[in-house]
Amino acid sequence: MFLSWDETVDVVVIGSGFAGLAAAIEAYNTGVSVIVLEKMNAPGGNSIISDGGIAAAGTEMQKKRGIKDSAELMYRDMLKAGLFLNHPELVRKVTKQSNEILQWTINYLGVEFMDRVDIFGGHSVPRCYTPLGVSGSAIIKQQLAKLEEMGGKVRTQSYFKTFIKDSKEKLIGLLVRNKFDYKDAECGTDIYIGIKKGIVLATGGFGSDVNFRSAQDPRLTGKIDTTNKPFATAEALKEAFKINAMPVQLSHIQLGPWGTPDENGYGAGARFSDYIVFPYGIIVDPKSGRRIVNELADRKIMSDAILNIGHPCIGITDTKAVDTAGWDINPCLERGIVKKFTTPEELATYYGISSAELKITIEKYNSYIENNLDEDFGKHILTEATPISSPPYYGIRTWPKVHHTMGGVQINTRAQVIDFNQEPIPRLYAAGEVTGGIHGACRLGSCAITECLVFGRTAGINAATD
Amino acid sequence: MFLSWDETVDVVVIGSGFAGLAAAIEAYNTGVSVIVLEKMNAPGGNSIISDGGIAAAGTEMQKKRGIKDSAELMYRDMLKAGLFLNHPELVRKVTKQSNEILQWTINYLGVEFMDRVDIFGGHSVPRCYTPLGVSGSAIIKQQLAKLEEMGGKVRTQSYFKTFIKDSKEKLIGLLVRNKFDYKDAECGTDIYIGIKKGIVLATGGFGSDVNFRSAQDPRLTGKIDTTNKPFATAEALKEAFKINAMPVQLSHIQLGPWGTPDENGYGAGARFSDYIVFPYGIIVDPKSGRRIVNELADRKIMSDAILNIGHPCIGITDTKAVDTAGWDINPCLERGIVKKFTTPEELATYYGISSAELKITIEKYNSYIENNLDEDFGKHILTEATPISSPPYYGIRTWPKVHHTMGGVQINTRAQVIDFNQEPIPRLYAAGEVTGGIHGACRLGSCAITECLVFGRTAGINAATD
Repeated sequence: MFLSWDETVDVVVIGSGFAGLAAAIEAYNTGVSVIVLEKMNAPGGNSIISDGGIAAAGTEMQKKRGIKDSAELMYRDMLKAGLFLNHPELVRKVTKQSNEILQWTINYLGVEFMDRVDIFGGHSVPRCYTPLGVSGSAIIKQQLAKLEEMGGKVRTQSYFKTFIKDSKEKLIGLLVRNKFDYKDAECGTDIYIGIKKGIVLATGGFGSDVNFRSAQDPRLTGKIDTTNKPFATAEALKEAFKINAMPVQLSHIQLGPWGTPDENGYGAGARFSDYIVFPYGIIVDPKSGRRIVNELADRKIMSDAILNIGHPCIGITDTKAVDTAGWDINPCLERGIVKKFTTPEELATYYGISSAELKITIEKYNSYIENNLDEDFGKHILTEATPISSPPYYGIRTWPKVHHTMGGVQINTRAQVIDFNQEPIPRLYAAGEVTGGIHGACRLGSCAITECLVFGRTAGINAATD
Repeated sequence: MFLSWDETVDVVVIGSGFAGLAAAIEAYNTGVSVIVLEKMNAPGGNSIISDGGIAAAGTEMQKKRGIKDSAELMYRDMLKAGLFLNHPELVRKVTKQSNEILQWTINYLGVEFMDRVDIFGGHSVPRCYTPLGVSGSAIIKQQLAKLEEMGGKVRTQSYFKTFIKDSKEKLIGLLVRNKFDYKDAECGTDIYIGIKKGIVLATGGFGSDVNFRSAQDPRLTGKIDTTNKPFATAEALKEAFKINAMPVQLSHIQLGPWGTPDENGYGAGARFSDYIVFPYGIIVDPKSGRRIVNELADRKIMSDAILNIGHPCIGITDTKAVDTAGWDINPCLERGIVKKFTTPEELATYYGISSAELKITIEKYNSYIENNLDEDFGKHILTEATPISSPPYYGIRTWPKVHHTMGGVQINTRAQVIDFNQEPIPRLYAAGEVTGGIHGACRLGSCAITECLVFGRTAGINAATD
């Protein structure tokens, strides 16, 4: 029971992924005292296992390649994919600041990016930038370095339990479990942290919380895999609801169409599908031997298409595509996630596809590439795309995995958490996957990190200075 | 501040629409004491202004007409329209009990139905039964009569403010505003009602709550009309969230495609569109003169199609369809909601449609009727449908209105409210539009009343006897 504060601080940031660390850095920059809480025994949350791709519009890297893009076009892409359920003012902020946040990542944090601009399904043009190492850890590492430079650090094994309010319903502190152990509920001790300024909730999504996610979408039982770490659960989100944070769009849960049943979690296969098969190859239903969807459609359209087939589909591509994409696929081959074949017939036999049907499908698709028009699904034929005809050929089984939870607490453009009556909850800010409304019904690839950094910074500044 | 109970009762039912009254009747039937609270000054809630249509599968009325139907088919229709987001076990219960609930309405309540079985968009077969008077009030009236027979009555102007828990978090009562006046916040006095058994939350949807609904779907600002009464707001739902009821699928809000901008609220035009234009006529975009959608698609598909056009579309039908449907359309004509024309050309001119284009559209559609195949949109051509060729012709402007909120608190098949951790909240039950998960992404027409009655009865029995 609460008697007195064990410690007092200006700002507490809960969570140490992209959003939490961006908030912590900006809060520190204002000169206030900051504590960053992380429930696990290492910082980085689920962010650290992402690909690290950032979407940004109107960048120098695009201009260099002659790619015409704008914040307005990115805004429209996000709303279209989101089925117009997105909160427009939040999308406006993310897209307007997307170029600036990429620059901040490069110039301020010192993150190094690969010399490439990728396109993912649902984006009108290539606008995705991937850090060296193709991992979110490249960004997290630099954020942590920046934090340490300032004298800050992440307090690991610190589990946020609940908010403390005074008799006038004012948010005054937190109950936190110190020396928390995820596998041992008895471990650790409770401490009370008093807050002088604000709290930033940056606790991530609930993709691994089977109870919570399947209440929202009953298809997503424990039988569906997730790309998330097991600790991506909803407990902090529920605490926010208890103090009247408005839940928004919780039932919009994104599946990653690049999942493969041949490995657990996010895995290496996801990159093979997303960067090689989807832009340059095809996805076929092994039963019919036919394509089933525009392979550059957004994640919702693609995942629903594969789920509707009812069994894993086969992603097919060739050596030229692998060379064009420029990825090392050996780790996928070594782990048996991607299979290599001398001929399309051999591939067909391996996956139980009719060779004759697959031949027709590939020939048709190759003619679409040559004519620059996909008559079946309207796929955007990329300039560098070539017919599927260069052996060896590659195949991967695809089956969607829970990837991102679009819903969460409502925020405004100042990253203030909004209550049931559409008023900001004083002292409470949020950023990242714990918030809802930015992506609507469907998040476009690599827009999450942009959003985490934009709203993380905003939340940190406002929590420290409001 | 709470000192002692002003009164104590076994069961309190909050709300006096279809679900609340069904719960009250069943609770009374167990012999316990019951209070029914209604915030407005008359009972019936939003139910009373509905059309009163009940969907049921495998009924005598269907058999008499040679319509083959089953609970299984109705279940599949509801899941398909709901995009498989529906909680399957709840849908199973509603569909299995649909015939029984229709019989209960006829035999136990004494509601009289018209001798017709209608089909609405998304249903595979005609399975909708409409009471004499085509109004939910026909059912509400009989429910109230049954309640009075038992010595019960609805306490109007009684506004539920909040739940009262004891120090062990057990639900023990309610704070209620007596002599409440919706237009005067100062009016009335607070009383505390202690609960010995259970509470049934049957407070309806939030279709008129612009703040709440636009947080979930930002398109639904105050500029979009609603078919709901102005009191269809979210305050009781929010109170349930405050005691950890799990919010489910709040962002799935149904628009009625049969709305017309030429009258306020639900109106008479809705029936004209739903019972005559959709099954027998066409909807055209006045700019192109072309059809835009399968007029018997579900409400979501149709509303999205019209909203995407960006301006009101025109529903067109003829005299033969009006005769076949068997409705008196004079009220619509007198109020100028439906317009009458001697020729299609005259209609085209009035609505600014190209006569030539409309002629082609009608000729094409008429050929589809004759060939029993809609080549453009795959509309189910009804046996009694005839070509649009019998003057006079009729037109109505269509523009969607907020109609039903599919989301709400989570319940299980026993109508217990489920909390964040997927455990039932002891003593709390819910039924009707305040609950979420039964209809998923899209509710099919006339399934709501079935659901309200099935779960209302379940909630009443369990609140009284658990």
